[in-house]
Amino acid sequence: MITRRSFLSLAAASAVAKPVYAFRSSQSAPAIDAARLRNRLERLSYHGRKPGAAFTDGVSRVAYSTADLTARAWIIDEIKGAEIVPRIDAAGNIFARFGGQPNQPPILFGSHIDSVPNGGNFDGDLGTFSALEVIQAVQAAKIQTRHPLEMVVWAHEESTAFGIGTAASRIVAGDLQAGDMDRVWNGMKRSDAIRRIAGSPDQIETAVRGKGTWHSYVELHIEQGGNLDKAKIPIGVVEGIVGIHRYDAVIEGLSNHAGTTPMNERHDAMVAAAELTLAVREIASRRQGRQVGTVGRIEIEPNSPNVIAGRATLSVEFRDLSEQTLRELGDAIKTRAAAIGKETGTTITLTLASTNVPATANSGIQQAITNAAAAAGLESMRLPSGAGHDAQQIAKICPMGMIFVPSVGGISHSPKELTSWEDCAHGADVLLKTVLALDQRESV
Amino acid sequence: MITRRSFLSLAAASAVAKPVYAFRSSQSAPAIDAARLRNRLERLSYHGRKPGAAFTDGVSRVAYSTADLTARAWIIDEIKGAEIVPRIDAAGNIFARFGGQPNQPPILFGSHIDSVPNGGNFDGDLGTFSALEVIQAVQAAKIQTRHPLEMVVWAHEESTAFGIGTAASRIVAGDLQAGDMDRVWNGMKRSDAIRRIAGSPDQIETAVRGKGTWHSYVELHIEQGGNLDKAKIPIGVVEGIVGIHRYDAVIEGLSNHAGTTPMNERHDAMVAAAELTLAVREIASRRQGRQVGTVGRIEIEPNSPNVIAGRATLSVEFRDLSEQTLRELGDAIKTRAAAIGKETGTTITLTLASTNVPATANSGIQQAITNAAAAAGLESMRLPSGAGHDAQQIAKICPMGMIFVPSVGGISHSPKELTSWEDCAHGADVLLKTVLALDQRESV
Repeated sequence: MITRRSFLSLAAASAVAKPVYAFRSSQSAPAIDAARLRNRLERLSYHGRKPGAAFTDGVSRVAYSTADLTARAWIIDEIKGAEIVPRIDAAGNIFARFGGQPNQPPILFGSHIDSVPNGGNFDGDLGTFSALEVIQAVQAAKIQTRHPLEMVVWAHEESTAFGIGTAASRIVAGDLQAGDMDRVWNGMKRSDAIRRIAGSPDQIETAVRGKGTWHSYVELHIEQGGNLDKAKIPIGVVEGIVGIHRYDAVIEGLSNHAGTTPMNERHDAMVAAAELTLAVREIASRRQGRQVGTVGRIEIEPNSPNVIAGRATLSVEFRDLSEQTLRELGDAIKTRAAAIGKETGTTITLTLASTNVPATANSGIQQAITNAAAAAGLESMRLPSGAGHDAQQIAKICPMGMIFVPSVGGISHSPKELTSWEDCAHGADVLLKTVLALDQRESV
Repeated sequence: MITRRSFLSLAAASAVAKPVYAFRSSQSAPAIDAARLRNRLERLSYHGRKPGAAFTDGVSRVAYSTADLTARAWIIDEIKGAEIVPRIDAAGNIFARFGGQPNQPPILFGSHIDSVPNGGNFDGDLGTFSALEVIQAVQAAKIQTRHPLEMVVWAHEESTAFGIGTAASRIVAGDLQAGDMDRVWNGMKRSDAIRRIAGSPDQIETAVRGKGTWHSYVELHIEQGGNLDKAKIPIGVVEGIVGIHRYDAVIEGLSNHAGTTPMNERHDAMVAAAELTLAVREIASRRQGRQVGTVGRIEIEPNSPNVIAGRATLSVEFRDLSEQTLRELGDAIKTRAAAIGKETGTTITLTLASTNVPATANSGIQQAITNAAAAAGLESMRLPSGAGHDAQQIAKICPMGMIFVPSVGGISHSPKELTSWEDCAHGADVLLKTVLALDQRESV
């Protein structure tokens, strides 16, 4: 069992136990090994692949599943093979640190290896193995960094297991509530799930890390959107990760006979739901900016062709980099909902069901990524991340930056998820160059 | 087993076996027994009532259920108690004939006693027992009618069992397809269901009756809409029963990440479904007339708050008295669907899934009902029936008319379904007067 105290002393012991290399300009420039990176991504893909299926048939490696367990065991072996010591915190996250001066805060980088059901082989995986490449490149080039370099494999990023708001990086960032360990998903208590991956739910609070723990955090990830692919630009410099305001909309109308109720006497919850759906689109579309609004879920009652719907429940979701914009979008849809309720003779209630605060990427790290891409001879562009990432959590405790590489067709969370091997290597290279540049700075 | 031949000879035997009364003006005017009518409606309500529940808690007496079986057995006893002979045709419909000249076609009247799950105690029941009242009133007044008076209890009217298009009156009207008896619902084959109610599925074709079988058909029914209740008019003279054109709409969009897909690059099936829903309302509302249009069912995929819907299926239903109007409404929504598909980047396919042809009530019968109401000192109004009825089927083989009485608040197919006892008695009285008036006419 790893307590907070033993975890820290273990970390310190690990940091001093490693040889310290002095960087000399005469040495070969550090470089990632693109072939090894590809090979590891391909080998990882077997953990959660259907029997007889190919790499391109995707993967199902939901957190805490057997596939997740065997993948973690294999990664821990890979890390040990790179002669660094993996450690598992109480939440099940895997950390491994190399080099640096013991009195300096480490630079953290990494991603996750859990997937959605029927997901792809790049989401999370690329950032995870690129992190190991960074450390191995620095080792091979015999560079002595000022800051310890620390890679991380976040234990559970996708919200498949235990639902939204349960990612393991949230705990590290201090988002830990009483009762969190008692949640049940798939017949499994969360504490038991964490025990399965060698975490310590009874000392879960030791996984919480304070501000100043890390010098900075950098995550390489596939874009999961189509901007880079469309623009044919290999590197994205993430400006921030959008926040999410999600509402539950409940529409109360009056269920009635679809044949005998005149059009002008209806209280049709389906019609009101349709108006609300179009209002969400209009409100999200009419202003400048990259905000989005989506109605992705609807249930109506009784849901019968010959009965006017008496009740509808919908999800209304807005995403944007600005918390202020999210609030304004929420106010706008509430105003519209009241008007739609009046017009359709229904009652519409909008309840804020969950929020994810936006996370701004540190401007110094953004600049470092831009410079790193330029140094590698790669074009880059700035863009927001519409999807959530572990970086969003870690931004609460240290400066954060993210590097994106193109997703072909913008497809993700699908077996069709694809990033070219060349783009994978470019991303890992830019991650390496960014980390080394950040190492030169006392703070960002 | 009743073959068509034995059924007909049995009917003839029954018609001649009864005493024939001569009508003399000195005798008491025929009148229905309002107390007996109420008593029978209350007694029927126990068949399908939950233990310990009240009359106002409604009833579940789905066709072919145990409650339906016990209710039918009890009604057959009541008919026998009125000294007329009940006969069951091959489809399970119960007929009982009284008086008249054997060479005259009978005047048919009645309704059904099956209910929707959690239905009310008036839909069908009122018309059924009022029919028995008509015969008993004629018997008590010792009236000799020219036409035999024939009551009917249709075996299966609500589309709960075996779905739309399976009502027993359809078979009588000749709507019988190969394989109809092989349909399965609730683990039960339709032939077995019909056997349960003493029908003869192996001779099902003997249930089909030709044109000229009946002089006319009159059905008393609750309105199941709010027009009479709102206008405070006790008698509705039905102009016709609306036809129904029902479409299955399938919308193919592109499922994508709700965070990373810009608003203007979406192919959102939910947005297209919303546009289509509002188009149905607008198309049904913008022209003069009483046509209605409803989207009562929707399913979207994957139906997740954070995923843009890739596919939606909806029901689109139009109802009107005019087949021409129904075709025009269908053409209009198809045109709009194509435009919505273009605008939203989706493909919308509309398939005509089922049609119910409109049925016009015979104008002579409409006039007879109007006169009967006036003779009873009751105000009446003409109106269409937005709901389907057995009368719609029987209209294919003989002149048809319907009498409506008010539904409080227009509520039906609900335990809250309510018609005052006074309105029930008024309806039965108008049915009696209408039947006697029709008896005076060789044809209508």
